[in-house]
Amino acid sequence: MDNLDELEPLFYPRSLAVVGASTSETKFGGRFLQALINFGYRGPIYPVNPKGSEILGLKMYPGVREIPEPVELADIMVPAHLVPQVLEECLAKGIRAAQIFTSGFAETGEEQGRRLEEELRALAKRGIRIVGPNCFGVYCPEGGHTLLPGGDFPQESGPVAFITQSGGHAVEFARLARGMGIRFSKVVSYGNACDVNESDLLEYLARDSKTRIIAVYLEGPRQGRRFLRLVGEVAREKPVLIWKAGLTSTGARAVYSHTASLAGEEAVWEALFRQTAALRVKNLEELADATVALLRLPPNTGRRVGVVGGGGGISVAVADACDRAGLEVPPLSHDVQERLRGILPPAGTAVRNPVDIGAPIVFPTVFEGVMEAVACADGIDTIIATQAMYHVLAGVLGPPPEQMPALIRALVEVAPKVRDRSGKPVVIVLPVGGDELDKLEAEKGRREIRDSYLEMGVPCFPTLERAVRAVAHVARYYEKVAELS
Amino acid sequence: MDNLDELEPLFYPRSLAVVGASTSETKFGGRFLQALINFGYRGPIYPVNPKGSEILGLKMYPGVREIPEPVELADIMVPAHLVPQVLEECLAKGIRAAQIFTSGFAETGEEQGRRLEEELRALAKRGIRIVGPNCFGVYCPEGGHTLLPGGDFPQESGPVAFITQSGGHAVEFARLARGMGIRFSKVVSYGNACDVNESDLLEYLARDSKTRIIAVYLEGPRQGRRFLRLVGEVAREKPVLIWKAGLTSTGARAVYSHTASLAGEEAVWEALFRQTAALRVKNLEELADATVALLRLPPNTGRRVGVVGGGGGISVAVADACDRAGLEVPPLSHDVQERLRGILPPAGTAVRNPVDIGAPIVFPTVFEGVMEAVACADGIDTIIATQAMYHVLAGVLGPPPEQMPALIRALVEVAPKVRDRSGKPVVIVLPVGGDELDKLEAEKGRREIRDSYLEMGVPCFPTLERAVRAVAHVARYYEKVAELS
Repeated sequence: MDNLDELEPLFYPRSLAVVGASTSETKFGGRFLQALINFGYRGPIYPVNPKGSEILGLKMYPGVREIPEPVELADIMVPAHLVPQVLEECLAKGIRAAQIFTSGFAETGEEQGRRLEEELRALAKRGIRIVGPNCFGVYCPEGGHTLLPGGDFPQESGPVAFITQSGGHAVEFARLARGMGIRFSKVVSYGNACDVNESDLLEYLARDSKTRIIAVYLEGPRQGRRFLRLVGEVAREKPVLIWKAGLTSTGARAVYSHTASLAGEEAVWEALFRQTAALRVKNLEELADATVALLRLPPNTGRRVGVVGGGGGISVAVADACDRAGLEVPPLSHDVQERLRGILPPAGTAVRNPVDIGAPIVFPTVFEGVMEAVACADGIDTIIATQAMYHVLAGVLGPPPEQMPALIRALVEVAPKVRDRSGKPVVIVLPVGGDELDKLEAEKGRREIRDSYLEMGVPCFPTLERAVRAVAHVARYYEKVAELS
Repeated sequence: MDNLDELEPLFYPRSLAVVGASTSETKFGGRFLQALINFGYRGPIYPVNPKGSEILGLKMYPGVREIPEPVELADIMVPAHLVPQVLEECLAKGIRAAQIFTSGFAETGEEQGRRLEEELRALAKRGIRIVGPNCFGVYCPEGGHTLLPGGDFPQESGPVAFITQSGGHAVEFARLARGMGIRFSKVVSYGNACDVNESDLLEYLARDSKTRIIAVYLEGPRQGRRFLRLVGEVAREKPVLIWKAGLTSTGARAVYSHTASLAGEEAVWEALFRQTAALRVKNLEELADATVALLRLPPNTGRRVGVVGGGGGISVAVADACDRAGLEVPPLSHDVQERLRGILPPAGTAVRNPVDIGAPIVFPTVFEGVMEAVACADGIDTIIATQAMYHVLAGVLGPPPEQMPALIRALVEVAPKVRDRSGKPVVIVLPVGGDELDKLEAEKGRREIRDSYLEMGVPCFPTLERAVRAVAHVARYYEKVAELS
């Protein structure tokens, strides 16, 4: 793209017009204005609607041209057939950027919608950059702008960007990400991409110093070749995670109904993921898990894992899951096994790798000794620990309640201590404590422990499959970057 | 097996001895006795330990032969080398069933352990049926017996049986299952299977009128041919779900360390799952999900699903997930699409299938109209609805708080109403409302809604992948039963 600066007002608008602002709370126009105010946008907001004189304490304007001050961004949510006229007025007013939330364009599959979208495209070429239509727009906490239903999104920024053809996924990803400690530089729901498309956004984010990881949900790129070329380049510098939807035949049909996209050939995408460092994920959960892992694990996160678990069945499950995800669980050396035998009781345990620490009750000194021994072993890159908190979360077989907080603290501190001493990454599996209505206390306990881990930079997942899959993504990323450099 | 009645005392013991009962709470012997009492075992309990005269208000006996009354079951947790002697005493006392929790037998991989296990096997042949060693034993709420760390397990019975070589998985599955409304007839953690093995248990459960669904976690069967033959027979009568672990090379090694099992050949197991109605699952979550679905979905649950979702991106994700799981999402007929167009707004929606109901705010009348139209469509077997509760759970874009309970009730009632009128099964996707520490209220809301659904017999899953996978298992089961009959 010639001039990436053109996209700046979409992320950092110094003033904005809400065209189609409504006093009705059930309409998007009312909700979005409320969301912007709740989110705390700091520049002037100019609501535009021919009906009414004031809304939520703000003066209402009949049209954008009637706004007396300069406007950098127009957030547009009038009915589809009125959008071209609004854009004409924006051009006349000198507005250089717009987001169109309205649906009813090419995605309807009907002639009228397609024609309307062509009009938007032509208007964009006359000097206004457009995100949308049929989208939820931009969330950029640093710029104070939130997307359509994003009034309660976090106001802190972070290093993750997400570009998505689905507004629903933008909201869902942000929701999932919050509890996992992911914060965003930019989230863009860009819908039908009549002007600003996936390739423009990828190029922008590649150069954006605020963005360290780029997550993408894609139905069909508007500039396929440019996108594939860009992915290859960008992924060497920053992790690029792509959820490519619609590669099944049923999915391809749904993709067309949604954003009028052509899903493309599986083979093209497979080649991309084979040849570049881009990572392929298959759903939102995997996208969030891989993002957490990339945020918190170092480049020396390798495939050879040492697994510390409680219970033989769980060790078997970890071993199978690692094997399926392409991780190795190499047997520990004789010396390390001897060292472990010195720490663990002889019966109900195992020391080869996975290491089974036996009883569900784990004492911090035992846990630390075992973790330390595994982390020091040659030929082990990454340590995955599971079930050490079992008795804490299940609330059975534990110590008296008054001793619990100290025990939890001591157990939680093992992982960062061992990581820092050994220089090897540690990943924790921390299952949901109980899914019943009357077990919310256990769930509260889990979330507290998880937050402690995340604060100390230790990634933490609720199931071992998710942990193992996330580690495999990180290992794959740095291997591929090394191979391509 | 010649005489299945021999296993009765394991499930329904009228009196039992706890051999190795300890006053120390940190020892298994102390914890298990406490668990039995907490669980509410109704027959006489005779603690056995040469040291001490009383424990938890119960008279202690120095050995089983000193117990003055008849004893049906011995729960044994003395150190491994003492177990043969205890079994001799049990035989002398006329005890016909025992569970051995103790580890340190063949699973150690050492000569001494193997020899000890041989001794147990020989003792069993002299007239005592043994579960274990290296196990957590039997949970049978109807018989009042719980397994090793199972003091807080539900006292209600249900139609699901679980036999498992891993005690950890027994506990974990019960934990997962509780929140999903699964209740058990019997759970058996049978460990090394020196006597009672997977095949004996499967045969027993096949004839057990209290058991309608049989779930199995298996590392390596002790009687492979018998087990494979039995699975084929039993699965035609009752669903048999099998999680076969250790089929990867890393997993096979872990399996040997755990229960001294040989994991076997992938090809043998693949043939089993191809040729019989048994269902293959790959982890505990899938096992629980498939169980919930089999419990609550009727035999006419077919592969042709009608999907009702909110948001285009979610519809695409459902379509891809269905395709991958082997479900079909056939386009709805022209008439049904017209009917849907009459209910839904023209923009931001889709009517082909998946049906996109558009905005995240769903009104019960609209939801019911759409569900009804899809359920009445020819060529649709099963309805999956997702995201209808989005605004409720996310706590954004919803109605004022005081209107919330009525709205939730009205929305929840749609699924059973449509199911009962159409005769077609309905499945709900209900995501976790928010995973942050300060979003526990949303999680409480989700659990309440889920419990309402489960009470009305509507299966309900937290992610669409899990819902789709569970439906595919049910469809596969009844197809295969029809094919084989």
